[in-house]
Amino acid sequence: MIQRRDFLAIGVAALLPQIKIQAQQAPQTLIDDLVAGNHILAGEMVLDGYGHISVRHPGNRNRFLLSRSLAPESVTGADIMEHDLDGNPVDPKGRSPYKERFIHSEIYRARSDVNAVVHCHTPSLIPFGVTKVPLRPMYHQSAFLAAGVPVFEIRESAGMTNMLIETQPLGVALAKKLADKPAMLMRGHGAVIVADTIPNVVGRSIYLDLNARIQLQALQLVESAKGSITPLTPEEAQKYAASDNYARAWELWKKKAR
Amino acid sequence: MIQRRDFLAIGVAALLPQIKIQAQQAPQTLIDDLVAGNHILAGEMVLDGYGHISVRHPGNRNRFLLSRSLAPESVTGADIMEHDLDGNPVDPKGRSPYKERFIHSEIYRARSDVNAVVHCHTPSLIPFGVTKVPLRPMYHQSAFLAAGVPVFEIRESAGMTNMLIETQPLGVALAKKLADKPAMLMRGHGAVIVADTIPNVVGRSIYLDLNARIQLQALQLVESAKGSITPLTPEEAQKYAASDNYARAWELWKKKAR
Amino acid sequence: MIQRRDFLAIGVAALLPQIKIQAQQAPQTLIDDLVAGNHILAGEMVLDGYGHISVRHPGNRNRFLLSRSLAPESVTGADIMEHDLDGNPVDPKGRSPYKERFIHSEIYRARSDVNAVVHCHTPSLIPFGVTKVPLRPMYHQSAFLAAGVPVFEIRESAGMTNMLIETQPLGVALAKKLADKPAMLMRGHGAVIVADTIPNVVGRSIYLDLNARIQLQALQLVESAKGSITPLTPEEAQKYAASDNYARAWELWKKKAR
Amino acid sequence: MIQRRDFLAIGVAALLPQIKIQAQQAPQTLIDDLVAGNHILAGEMVLDGYGHISVRHPGNRNRFLLSRSLAPESVTGADIMEHDLDGNPVDPKGRSPYKERFIHSEIYRARSDVNAVVHCHTPSLIPFGVTKVPLRPMYHQSAFLAAGVPVFEIRESAGMTNMLIETQPLGVALAKKLADKPAMLMRGHGAVIVADTIPNVVGRSIYLDLNARIQLQALQLVESAKGSITPLTPEEAQKYAASDNYARAWELWKKKAR
Repeated sequence: MIQRRDFLAIGVAALLPQIKIQAQQAPQTLIDDLVAGNHILAGEMVLDGYGHISVRHPGNRNRFLLSRSLAPESVTGADIMEHDLDGNPVDPKGRSPYKERFIHSEIYRARSDVNAVVHCHTPSLIPFGVTKVPLRPMYHQSAFLAAGVPVFEIRESAGMTNMLIETQPLGVALAKKLADKPAMLMRGHGAVIVADTIPNVVGRSIYLDLNARIQLQALQLVESAKGSITPLTPEEAQKYAASDNYARAWELWKKKAR
Repeated sequence: MIQRRDFLAIGVAALLPQIKIQAQQAPQTLIDDLVAGNHILAGEMVLDGYGHISVRHPGNRNRFLLSRSLAPESVTGADIMEHDLDGNPVDPKGRSPYKERFIHSEIYRARSDVNAVVHCHTPSLIPFGVTKVPLRPMYHQSAFLAAGVPVFEIRESAGMTNMLIETQPLGVALAKKLADKPAMLMRGHGAVIVADTIPNVVGRSIYLDLNARIQLQALQLVESAKGSITPLTPEEAQKYAASDNYARAWELWKKKAR
Repeated sequence: MIQRRDFLAIGVAALLPQIKIQAQQAPQTLIDDLVAGNHILAGEMVLDGYGHISVRHPGNRNRFLLSRSLAPESVTGADIMEHDLDGNPVDPKGRSPYKERFIHSEIYRARSDVNAVVHCHTPSLIPFGVTKVPLRPMYHQSAFLAAGVPVFEIRESAGMTNMLIETQPLGVALAKKLADKPAMLMRGHGAVIVADTIPNVVGRSIYLDLNARIQLQALQLVESAKGSITPLTPEEAQKYAASDNYARAWELWKKKAR
Repeated sequence: MIQRRDFLAIGVAALLPQIKIQAQQAPQTLIDDLVAGNHILAGEMVLDGYGHISVRHPGNRNRFLLSRSLAPESVTGADIMEHDLDGNPVDPKGRSPYKERFIHSEIYRARSDVNAVVHCHTPSLIPFGVTKVPLRPMYHQSAFLAAGVPVFEIRESAGMTNMLIETQPLGVALAKKLADKPAMLMRGHGAVIVADTIPNVVGRSIYLDLNARIQLQALQLVESAKGSITPLTPEEAQKYAASDNYARAWELWKKKAR
C-alpha cells in the first residue's frame, strides 16, 4: 500500500528545480495498487464499463498515472500511462487516453493535498445529482461527507453540452466547484472522489455509494412510517422462538461458506 | 419433464380399487425434476435454508413426494420421501420429515387439479401479507395472479400460535382458504403456490416473487411521480449521442459473457 | 464488432434487383456478436429465460437473424435462423421460431435506420408501462431517452388479448407506435429497443434498465426529502476521520479482486 | 455445533474457585464454528470488511474468543484470540485486537445468558438507527424482535465522539442499554446481536437484516397503496395462461441449477 510518508517525501522533492523528464518509472507496488483499485471498484459495482481511477506520480507531483481508455475491469499494468497536468499522456505509444482525463489533471493542479482521484457514474449517486436533496453522512463509514457534497452543474459553466469533461476549461470549472471537499456530484453524469492515497479514495468511493443507498432508505422510512402493518404479537413470537430455529440453515450456511 | 398426460393416466388408475402398498418407486425423471426444483428455487432466492417443494406421486394420487427436513439447496434424490395424505412418511428409514408437511398433504387432498406445491418465505411477499394491499398481475408472466391472491390469517383459525402449519387441522384450514386459487399468502409467514406440474409451480413461484417486487415499485412510482427532477435536455442528449457510446463497454461485456 | 460501414455497403446492395435467394450465409463475426448479445443481456439480467435480440442481415436488407425459440443464455451459433420480413424462418430445419418474431420483422420493415432489435421483460421497466409516469434521461448514458419513450397499449389495437405480439398485424401496430423512437415500453408486458448495431442495441437495453431504476429512486428521493433523519455531526465526523479508515478493508478488497 | 449443554456444564465449572490460567485451548469444533460464523456473515453481506463475531469460552465463562483485527472473510483459526472480560487479549503473540472489543467484553460481563455476540454495520439497519421508526417482527423468522429493539445513542453517554466503542466505559453503557434484549441498533453506526450459541447469533443477524428490508418495503407498500396502476384484466390473464408458459425457462433453470 502506498503510504502517506511517500507523499511527504514527494513534498520535499517538489521544492527542487524541476528537471524536464520523460516518463519516470513509478514504483511497481503503486502500479499494482492502481490496477487493484480499478478491479476493486468494478467488482464493487462503483464502476461499470466506464469511469476511472488515477494516482499522482510519487516521483513528480506534476504527473499522474491513469489507464489508457479501457473498461476498469480489464486494466493491467501495461495500460497505465503517465500524464502531465495539462492532461497529455507523456509516452502514449499509440495508446488512447480517456476523453475525460481533464477531471484528474485539473484536480491535481488545484489540490496539493490530493494524490488519488476517482470519477464514476454509480447509479445510487445519480438521484442526488438530479434533485436538490443533499447527501449527508448516515454513519461512521461515510463520515467524510460531513464536509458537504457540492453538485457540479455543467450548464453554469458551458450551457448545453454533451455532459462530459472533455476540455481543460471544463476541468478547471469542475475543480473550482469541488474546492476543498472530498467528494462532489455531477448533475446528470456522476461524481468525483478524492483522497490522499489509493486505498482511501477507493474506500471513500465504496462508502459514498453505500451512504447514498442508506440515505434514500432512511428518508423513505420516515416518509412511510405512519403506515399500518401487522407485526407478530409478543405471544406469537414467543411460541415460535421456543423451537431451535437455525439448525437446518446453519448446515447450509456452513456449506456455502466453504 | 413430467407431462400433463402422466397425470391423466393417473386419473384412470385412481378409479381402480386401491391396494394397500408401501412406497412405490416413482419415475427417476420425476425425482430428478423435484431435486432440480429444490435447487432452482434456492438459486433464484425464492427459498433460502427453509421452505419446500413437493409433487404428487404419479402412481398413486394419495401419495406425494417431499424431501426429508433439509435446506432445499442440499436436497438429493436420496432425501426424497413418499408421504401419505395424512402427512406421514411411508418409509422414513430414520429420516425426519418437515414439520409443515401438512401444507402439502391437505392441499393434495382438497385439490384434485394440483400435482405440485411450493411453500416459501420469499422476502418480497411478506409485505403483501402484513398489509391490506392485494397482489395484482403486473404483466403477462404473472397472469395467473388475476384469479386473486388470498391471505391466510392463522389467528382466524387458531388464535396465537407459533405461526407454523404443524398440524393436520391447520393444513385443512390453509387448504380451505386457498380454495381454487393458484397462490396464497400467509400473514407474517410466507406463501403457498400450486400448479399441475413441477415446472409450472416453479415458474409461478419465480414470477410471483418478481411480480411482488414490480408491483411495489409501480405503486411507489405513482406515489412519487409529482417530484421535480432534472432530466437531460434534448440538446444535451443529442450532443452526447453524437459519439459512439458503447464500444468500450461492449468489449467488457463480451469478455464477461464468455 | 459489426461496423456502421457494413450497413452502408448494404445500402448500395439494396439498390440492385433482388434475386430470390435461400438463406445466405451471414458473416461469422456477426453471428458471434448476436450470440454474445444474447449472453450479455442474460448476464446483465435484462433478459431472463425469455426475450430476444435480432440483427438485420448485412447481405439482404429484407432478412434478419434471430435465434430459434430458446432461452437467450443458451443460444449458440447453430440456433440462429434467417427470417424474412413476414416473420418466416427461411430454412428452419425443424427448429421452432419465437412466437413474437413479428416484433422484429415489422420494425425492420418500417425502420430502414434500424439494424438491431431487442425485446425484453426487464422488471424495472414494467412499472413505467403500467403507470402514467414517463421515462426521462437521468444521465448521459441514457441520453437516447430524450427522444421520448412511447407506451404501446395493446388494448387500443386488439382489445383483450394474451398480451403477446404473435401476429403480423400486431407487429405492424407495434412498429407504428414506436415510430422513429429508439425505445418503447409495452404495457403489462415489456419493451422494445432498437439501434443501428448490435453493440448499440445491447448498450441501450442495459442503460434503459439502469435509467428506470435510477429514475424511480430520484422520484422517491424528492418525495421523501422532507423526512427528519439524524446524520453525523461535523464534530463526530472529524473525530472518526482522524483514524486511518480503510486499511483493513483494503486488504480484503485486494484479495477479492484477485 | 456448540450445544446448549456445553454451557450448562460451564455453569457448574463456574462455581469452582477460579484458578488463574493463561489461554486455555478451546474445542477445535468451536473455533471452526467461529471461523465459519465469520465467513457466513461476510458471505451473506451482514458484515463487509468490518464488524466481528465472538463466542464465550466454554472452559472459562470469564473469557471469550474473537479474531485479531481482520476482515471477517479472511479470518482463520490462527487469528482467534482469547480475551478476558476487561477486553485484554490473553496471549496476543503480537496480534492486534479489534478496537471495539469492549462491545463483546461488557456484554459477556452483563449477560450471563449470552454466549455469542455479533457487531455489524449492515446497511439495511442504519436507516432504523437514524430515524425514530422501531423495528418490528414482520414474520416468524425474526420473531425474536418482538422483545423490542433499543437504539443506543452514543451522545447520551459521551457527547461528540468518533462513534466507536473503543473504551470500557462505552462498553458498559452499551451493555446497559441492551439490557435483556437480543438485538440493539447503534445510531449512525450499526448494531449488536446476542444469542446463546454461534448458530443462533448468526441466524438472528441474517434475519435481522432481512426483517429490516422487509419492514421498509411493507411501510412503503402501505404508503403508496392508493396509487393507480393498470394490472392485467382477468380476460387478458386467462388468454395468456392458456399457453404452456414455463417450458423454455424450465430448461434454462435446470441448466443453471446444475
